[in-house]
Amino acid sequence: MTAQANLGTRLDPWYDHYAARAAGLSASEVRALFAVASRPEVVSLAGGMPFVAGLPNTVVSASLERVMTEHGPQALQYGSGQGVPELREHITRVMAAEGITASPDDVVVTTGSQQALDLVTKLFIDPGDVILAEAPSYVGAIGIFRSYQAKISHVAMDAHGLIPAALEERIVELMAAGETLKFLYTIPNFHNPAGVTLTTDRRVEILEICRRHSILVLEDNPYGMLAFDEPAPPALRSLDDGVIYLGSFSKTLAPGFRIGWALAPHAIREKLILANESAILCPSSFSQFVISDYLDNTDWLTQINTFRGIYHSRKNAMITALEDNLPSLSWTNPNGGFFVWLTLPEQLDSKAMLPRAVKELVAYTPGTAFYADGGGRQNIRLSFCYPTEESIALGIRRLTTVIRGELDLLNTFGGSGSISAVPTPGRYNAPPPNIS
Amino acid sequence: MTAQANLGTRLDPWYDHYAARAAGLSASEVRALFAVASRPEVVSLAGGMPFVAGLPNTVVSASLERVMTEHGPQALQYGSGQGVPELREHITRVMAAEGITASPDDVVVTTGSQQALDLVTKLFIDPGDVILAEAPSYVGAIGIFRSYQAKISHVAMDAHGLIPAALEERIVELMAAGETLKFLYTIPNFHNPAGVTLTTDRRVEILEICRRHSILVLEDNPYGMLAFDEPAPPALRSLDDGVIYLGSFSKTLAPGFRIGWALAPHAIREKLILANESAILCPSSFSQFVISDYLDNTDWLTQINTFRGIYHSRKNAMITALEDNLPSLSWTNPNGGFFVWLTLPEQLDSKAMLPRAVKELVAYTPGTAFYADGGGRQNIRLSFCYPTEESIALGIRRLTTVIRGELDLLNTFGGSGSISAVPTPGRYNAPPPNIS
Repeated sequence: MTAQANLGTRLDPWYDHYAARAAGLSASEVRALFAVASRPEVVSLAGGMPFVAGLPNTVVSASLERVMTEHGPQALQYGSGQGVPELREHITRVMAAEGITASPDDVVVTTGSQQALDLVTKLFIDPGDVILAEAPSYVGAIGIFRSYQAKISHVAMDAHGLIPAALEERIVELMAAGETLKFLYTIPNFHNPAGVTLTTDRRVEILEICRRHSILVLEDNPYGMLAFDEPAPPALRSLDDGVIYLGSFSKTLAPGFRIGWALAPHAIREKLILANESAILCPSSFSQFVISDYLDNTDWLTQINTFRGIYHSRKNAMITALEDNLPSLSWTNPNGGFFVWLTLPEQLDSKAMLPRAVKELVAYTPGTAFYADGGGRQNIRLSFCYPTEESIALGIRRLTTVIRGELDLLNTFGGSGSISAVPTPGRYNAPPPNIS
Repeated sequence: MTAQANLGTRLDPWYDHYAARAAGLSASEVRALFAVASRPEVVSLAGGMPFVAGLPNTVVSASLERVMTEHGPQALQYGSGQGVPELREHITRVMAAEGITASPDDVVVTTGSQQALDLVTKLFIDPGDVILAEAPSYVGAIGIFRSYQAKISHVAMDAHGLIPAALEERIVELMAAGETLKFLYTIPNFHNPAGVTLTTDRRVEILEICRRHSILVLEDNPYGMLAFDEPAPPALRSLDDGVIYLGSFSKTLAPGFRIGWALAPHAIREKLILANESAILCPSSFSQFVISDYLDNTDWLTQINTFRGIYHSRKNAMITALEDNLPSLSWTNPNGGFFVWLTLPEQLDSKAMLPRAVKELVAYTPGTAFYADGGGRQNIRLSFCYPTEESIALGIRRLTTVIRGELDLLNTFGGSGSISAVPTPGRYNAPPPNIS
């Protein structure tokens, strides 16, 4: 018995009882940051919390009241594992606004789209199966994939999103190596964390590649309706009925209700309902009736436009602050969503620099959180969704102080301090270039 | 390729892509019944839906209003994966009413206690591991266990709950066979579906047996506070801090909010939080604030007493109807909870009889739903929680017609029709005797 195992045994009598998959459960870097970000003196550019104060309380309260009057006993009761029919109807109308034609029968309502992603992964992934994902990818997706013992293979992106040639090359390579490829997980719009959007041409090309190699496509689209200037390109699901599409009300309404959904081809949809029933019996009836009422009685597209306006202004504030303070660095300039992806000078390490940033009262998410393979040290994700424009400007000024301090330290002492000597990862982990 | 596999391939292009565990996902018998039960002319004695109409709408509405006024932005936002601190405080007070001393730090809030059970299973079960469970056991637990490819080993119960000697014997037997035993799943109070309660002496004995064999105990207690005459015996968790305890607001308040919890020893609790974050990011903040407000501002114990009174009267109505109509049969007479477990004449098959029952406009859950091993054909679960006393009486009269019809058929034609020739399973699957 190793010292490590011995220690575990002494602290936890069940140390030897956990499933093999439990080893994949580790505290994410974003998680630790939530605690830091909650201190009021810290400007947090870390979390992905939507600006719920942009939604009038009175609108929500009116829906709550109507739900109790009109649907009280149903809203308080268990519902079906697939979700409330009225809400599924509304969801098809929401997706229609993104060009998707679908039947309410093919919608499965979940506890946020996170749970939809968990269920799809549970349904398809045996230990050791490969999931293709962008480099970088959503930290919460990486967490789920690890918890089911998937291998995650990152595929390069650039300013126009996932690179089709890189995807094809990787698929061929993995298949030749005898790997079992299960699906491509992609966030085509206003990518989290990279802030880039997949072009229409590439969408067509990627769908064609995946069809040819029998690889299921899982499209995660929480930010699609939060476009700033022009609408997002057509959803992958609108171009191919075989795509599993994940949607969410967390960014267009409020995450506190925890309602998301999956739209899936018939046979998969049926299994997702069973998996949902197994995991939670049913999603919250109350939350579903509230959102259904809200979509029925509110001009929800106008509310989304309000959110878009707020996030657009905040994005502009962040880009301006970056241009003013860090003109020598590069970053993405998203046309929607919540995130800017900043590339640091080669010598700096975003993860090692974080404690110094928090000391300067600014928080961000280090790029390493978004890679399953140790990449991302040269990047940081900056969120503009929650802080005000003034806070964003202040946060970027503080970040500038931190970066300058790190560079000074480097110039004075060489490779010591928090400065990493780890080389930038190769092509497949390369950060997207500055498209600002 | 078999004809079956071939058929699957033609209908579902992803037929060969599913994980091995997906084979464990099958539609439960209870699920199909929900559809039937929703027809108004059918008296459903099938579902376990609580009588939410027993909760005044005004009380809920008042909490909703206060939450929006006092906690709007927090209630609409993401929260922590462990759950809202105020609610976790309240949960410790709820558990204190059952004799449990616990810190809010050790509580993890989940999407109903169903999700807590899913997370514990995900954390501990590798394919092929054995879970010990009562014979019969909760259908939703069996579904979860199967979805993680556990082997389920049923241990006999009688009128006093799980039989300690049978548990010990089974453990020894399984260990000798080289099986990996992970935990005992038990519903000690007002068992679903058996309606029996584990005696205090047996609780002590069972905890001792599990400690001696290093078997984790998972106590599922959704009905503990719904005792009719005298309180339930002390919770297993109140006798041993090493027990994982699952609790729920679904039966004492309303299931529509989907809020349950796990109370777990430190090391396990930490992993459950990570598993919860991975699966759903966080439970619904809105639901949590509503329940927290309700517990703060309402005499919730009086509300539970109201529910107890309603369920007690309904249980009495069911027992009276059984005595009046089916005096030659045997059934359990629960001192709390939602369910009576009826034993049919040996020749009848509860599952095969169901379509005939639905034709007579009465629904029940066949005993087979509660066994992982094909047992339960001679039993049916009767729920008294949702229908009125009049409906219960009518439902039992209709059931009597069905049973008599089946017996007549048997007398006329012998072993044909829906009458099963399958012998009653042996000791470990024996239904609990009639304790009415």
